[in-house]
Amino acid sequence: MPGIDGTQPHALDAFFSPASIAIIGASRDATRIPGILLAFLRKNEFAGEIFPVNPNYDEIDGLKCYPSIGAVGRPVDLAIVIIPARAVLAVLEDCAAVGVRHAIIISSGFAEEGGESVHAQAGIAALAKRTGMRISGPNAEGFYNAIAGVAATFSPTVDVRPGVTPLIATRKRIGIVAQSGGIGFAIYNRAKALGIALSYVISTGNEADLGAGAFFDFMVTDKSTDVILLFLEGIRDTDTFLAAAQRAAATGKPVIVTKVGRSSAGGRAAASHTASMAGWSAAYDAVFARYGFIVSNDLDEAVAIAAVLTTSPLPKGDRVAVVTVSGGAGIWGADAVSAQGLRVPELSAPVQAVIRGLIPSYGSPRNPVDITAQAVHSGGLQKTIDLLSRSDEVDSILVVISLSSETRMPFKVPELKPLIDARPKPIVFYSYTLPSPFARTGLAEAGVVILTGLTHVGVALRQLVRHARFRLASDAARDAAPGAPVPAIEAAAWSEYDSKRLLRDAGIAVPDELLVDDRTKLPAAVAQAGFPLVMKIQSPDIPHKSEVGGVRVGMASDADAQAAFDDLIAAARRHRPDAAIQGVLVGPMANKGVELIVGTMCDATFGPMVMVGLGGVATELYRDVVYRPAPVGAAEARAMLQSLKAWPLLDGFRGAAKADVPAAAGVIAQLSQLAAHWREAVAEIEVNPVLVHPEGQGVTIVDALVVPARKEAVSAP
Amino acid sequence: MPGIDGTQPHALDAFFSPASIAIIGASRDATRIPGILLAFLRKNEFAGEIFPVNPNYDEIDGLKCYPSIGAVGRPVDLAIVIIPARAVLAVLEDCAAVGVRHAIIISSGFAEEGGESVHAQAGIAALAKRTGMRISGPNAEGFYNAIAGVAATFSPTVDVRPGVTPLIATRKRIGIVAQSGGIGFAIYNRAKALGIALSYVISTGNEADLGAGAFFDFMVTDKSTDVILLFLEGIRDTDTFLAAAQRAAATGKPVIVTKVGRSSAGGRAAASHTASMAGWSAAYDAVFARYGFIVSNDLDEAVAIAAVLTTSPLPKGDRVAVVTVSGGAGIWGADAVSAQGLRVPELSAPVQAVIRGLIPSYGSPRNPVDITAQAVHSGGLQKTIDLLSRSDEVDSILVVISLSSETRMPFKVPELKPLIDARPKPIVFYSYTLPSPFARTGLAEAGVVILTGLTHVGVALRQLVRHARFRLASDAARDAAPGAPVPAIEAAAWSEYDSKRLLRDAGIAVPDELLVDDRTKLPAAVAQAGFPLVMKIQSPDIPHKSEVGGVRVGMASDADAQAAFDDLIAAARRHRPDAAIQGVLVGPMANKGVELIVGTMCDATFGPMVMVGLGGVATELYRDVVYRPAPVGAAEARAMLQSLKAWPLLDGFRGAAKADVPAAAGVIAQLSQLAAHWREAVAEIEVNPVLVHPEGQGVTIVDALVVPARKEAVSAP
Repeated sequence: MPGIDGTQPHALDAFFSPASIAIIGASRDATRIPGILLAFLRKNEFAGEIFPVNPNYDEIDGLKCYPSIGAVGRPVDLAIVIIPARAVLAVLEDCAAVGVRHAIIISSGFAEEGGESVHAQAGIAALAKRTGMRISGPNAEGFYNAIAGVAATFSPTVDVRPGVTPLIATRKRIGIVAQSGGIGFAIYNRAKALGIALSYVISTGNEADLGAGAFFDFMVTDKSTDVILLFLEGIRDTDTFLAAAQRAAATGKPVIVTKVGRSSAGGRAAASHTASMAGWSAAYDAVFARYGFIVSNDLDEAVAIAAVLTTSPLPKGDRVAVVTVSGGAGIWGADAVSAQGLRVPELSAPVQAVIRGLIPSYGSPRNPVDITAQAVHSGGLQKTIDLLSRSDEVDSILVVISLSSETRMPFKVPELKPLIDARPKPIVFYSYTLPSPFARTGLAEAGVVILTGLTHVGVALRQLVRHARFRLASDAARDAAPGAPVPAIEAAAWSEYDSKRLLRDAGIAVPDELLVDDRTKLPAAVAQAGFPLVMKIQSPDIPHKSEVGGVRVGMASDADAQAAFDDLIAAARRHRPDAAIQGVLVGPMANKGVELIVGTMCDATFGPMVMVGLGGVATELYRDVVYRPAPVGAAEARAMLQSLKAWPLLDGFRGAAKADVPAAAGVIAQLSQLAAHWREAVAEIEVNPVLVHPEGQGVTIVDALVVPARKEAVSAP
Repeated sequence: MPGIDGTQPHALDAFFSPASIAIIGASRDATRIPGILLAFLRKNEFAGEIFPVNPNYDEIDGLKCYPSIGAVGRPVDLAIVIIPARAVLAVLEDCAAVGVRHAIIISSGFAEEGGESVHAQAGIAALAKRTGMRISGPNAEGFYNAIAGVAATFSPTVDVRPGVTPLIATRKRIGIVAQSGGIGFAIYNRAKALGIALSYVISTGNEADLGAGAFFDFMVTDKSTDVILLFLEGIRDTDTFLAAAQRAAATGKPVIVTKVGRSSAGGRAAASHTASMAGWSAAYDAVFARYGFIVSNDLDEAVAIAAVLTTSPLPKGDRVAVVTVSGGAGIWGADAVSAQGLRVPELSAPVQAVIRGLIPSYGSPRNPVDITAQAVHSGGLQKTIDLLSRSDEVDSILVVISLSSETRMPFKVPELKPLIDARPKPIVFYSYTLPSPFARTGLAEAGVVILTGLTHVGVALRQLVRHARFRLASDAARDAAPGAPVPAIEAAAWSEYDSKRLLRDAGIAVPDELLVDDRTKLPAAVAQAGFPLVMKIQSPDIPHKSEVGGVRVGMASDADAQAAFDDLIAAARRHRPDAAIQGVLVGPMANKGVELIVGTMCDATFGPMVMVGLGGVATELYRDVVYRPAPVGAAEARAMLQSLKAWPLLDGFRGAAKADVPAAAGVIAQLSQLAAHWREAVAEIEVNPVLVHPEGQGVTIVDALVVPARKEAVSAP
């Protein structure tokens, strides 16, 4: 049932906007966490009822204090638990017994500590499941709801200072979900300093019950949240997370995500901190890419992107006008946006002529537009911005300016405000000197956020263009071909021959080759394949054939083929005496093509993934590979190819024929669908290389290996 | 003659520290540039004499005002000229006539305006040359000397606010040379906010006489400047600049450089702004790389690097300890430094055991070291930093912390200060929340700069390690082989055959090949070369042979060779009927090797350059190329190869034999020396490919093209 403003109700509404809050472990000591939290709740003017719970007090700071949650005798929407870890579970039982709907456990000392404490956390999870009471934490820093003024946290960033008016420059609001209280509230702290409005910030702690996915889902549903920032160490409630991601992408709500634990040291720490698994970063990035998330690994960059998203309409294209009062700063601005792949086109003669009338002779109307310091106070700056905002020659405007003055403003705010309110395209403000509070406040009134990191501004403009262009791949396309059932596994491993048979049975075209298990059968096979030949040893125990001299190419006569057969068998017996030899695979040399590598694998968090890269040394040297969650459809597979740096090789590089991209995309999609379908039985599929022939001539799977799940592919040491 | 503190005297000493200043065009109007400049000069307590010059006043603000510079009648070290452009030259003549030593022209309206104004600027340059008076500007913003308190600028960043004590956290000082007043003073503005001490900041304007190179030279010589920041659009006084760069590198004084005008739009603007040529960025980067400059294209990043350089001893290695109070922030810190290629090693068991005694059970002593918020106030943070600063397991310490509190400090400053004073390794402080003025001031007393950009911190730590490791290549090695004189140019262009002959005559080994100009001579050539053959059409008019079907490989019989000869001649005649055909070059197929491309070219600013990249598509697709100013020695050539992403291919990739890197480096050095020696006659040398064979087996120059200077290489359209 929609709310009065059209908002869908959400299971966590009463968590974030409780009518009543109990603080279990409340304290009179204003320097300790329970005391600080109570003070913040009241200073932020929480409108509901507050029930301190502590058997040691009758009242705290004018509020009646209860000996136990059971003694409150009134409905409690949210219990905030701040007591020693060992006492938490019993108190939660009490809460559930009297119908408390939600709890946040601030207390530390659970799974992040290891040992016995892990069991205590499992007890919390079990209690939540059993009773239906939803629990956030333990080891959480709580949340702040800026819409309703609920400061259920001890983070100093929500403190209210007397006489300080919050800076608010944006109508749109950010919502923050963070798997670190320190960082979640730091994002809020930095966004607040820029004047970016907030809906909610939540720190998820150890996520015994409610996970980052559940809170993300709340933000996606929430009408007051326009832009979502996620800080992730590792997702636990994966399905909830993915469903919310799908909905965010489908509705176009921007998501900026920071994923940490990417390095070995970071991953090591994440494994203990909040007891999460940092997981495999490439899988996270693949998921983020599918849903069009904006990945940012820098705090100020993420906040700058949020600032641009909360103040800008979506741009129609990638052409940027740079307007400046300092020649050098304007050049830098043009460089910064160009470095992100955006265009800074020279303006047309008519537009230049109009600008020329607004600026001194030593300015420049070309783009970057240098209006000079002199033209600021004659109104040339504002007029130029107005002109460019109405021009169809550019899609965004970057204003590069100095806003450090405590007394003078380069704009007339009452005139700037209507211009900003009506802006049909992004107008982004960057100050190369540090902005004064005077400038921040004045421009906030006009709806302007002043940014101070030029590289971040360039990135934000690029991400804005990318976000405007993003189209979610349809679900249907992904599941187009379900693939054949995987046969029962009899061997501990599959050879190339076995692997290609599995792929062929699943409907994937593999070359016509013959397995020759006896040299007397060779001539017939050779006759069928035709010269020149490729011959490869086959054994489920030899997955890497070239390491044992198991591949021969270019045999051009029967005698050559016979010799090669004998050599291959002998070499295999010599290198791997215990290997079960199936024989030698005989086939024709493949036609030329662009070499790709396609692989699938299983991620512990997100399940099957598909990878594609340019074959040969480039994959490894230049890390030119791309991943997506499997399955993908052909359109998404094509987008994967286009995102490779090596894409020009497929697209008619240096006058060469274009490659058969539809065929390449098709086989990537098929393999990804197989990986998804076979997820229980198959750990990996590696097709390396697949040759992509010129347009209309298809692809050739030269080699393939399917690795069964949970078994060692190689039995020999 | 050294000064009393060992400082070398410099020609610009009296420019930056004048005993007397005349302000020509002085004004009583405190809102206009001359009035603002006079006010700043006095507020900053200039200790010398000030002579306002303006025929309209008898006195200004209590100072006697003179009708002309001639009327001053006292020695003037520096004249600051702020009058309309058309009157400037005559006033400068007057200044020179009475022996004024230096002038700064603030006035705009010269070369940046184009047309007639360019000539006016040339007049200034001529006057400086004729009279010996050194002139900065026009179109300059002046300078600030923070050592002697000389504010010869109207930049609001030097304004002195009553009651505001400047924040100074560093003993070392930065000096700033900027080809943009706006940016130069913005760097100062941001550095000042962090507490980084300044020596000088100078804005160079149009550089009619004194250029960025001259001011850079001053900063390199100056003992009070420890770290130099350069903001460049385009160097004019190249030789001075390069000499200063050489001295900075030789003495280990760090230089952080920002070069703008890298994009087409930025370059377009730089060409008009301050009338500089932005030049070719790759050449600038090549020069910066030679001298170990730290390139930064972001203002805050550059300032963060400066902060680390002004507060840190050089690290002995690349191992970083991350110490944090927030798990998530510590993971992010570990990721950020790891992303820069630095190591974050797990600490040894004994060190972990000591740390465990300082922190709660839910903290982590591994690295990142999470001491938890609880351990801050028990002194665990300071003790951990102290321990790690004495440990030989890490080379730097990154402290990741929240410093937003206005009342509480996580350190005892009187105890922290001696620790910081004695630090044997870098200790860098990052706050994920915005630091309070209270924290900034308190920690500045201890000699700590608080940084707020984590990516920038990672970059700064990497650059610090790089700076510590940098060794300047010796001059001698570069000029080892002077090369042969280039023969008189008779043709408008050279073919491959001609080019290889030039290289052979200059001492570079090229393959034994025969030019066959008549099919009757072919059998003898074939017999000498041996099968399989390579045959290539030769014409000075056909530099790109493969475009006309002019290359044939793999001929394995006399008949094949004859047919190929006829085909090559026929194809050339068909595609280029007017081309002068020299014949067909016949040689053996080269042995296998790693393909490199080596080239030389001439940059308008810096002269000859040498380039090396991996051959084939990688050079273009992955931009995996590196440039240096020519000549280079073998050691620098080897360093070029090592800086390629493709370096592993030369270094035993996937178990392959190592390539003959000494031979490759040798040929790069030789070609670079030729390019330098031949700079008048030769525009480009392109050797593509050169095959690098396994160790001890040398290289093969497969193809080569030498392009003469100032002539079109191709006469046919």
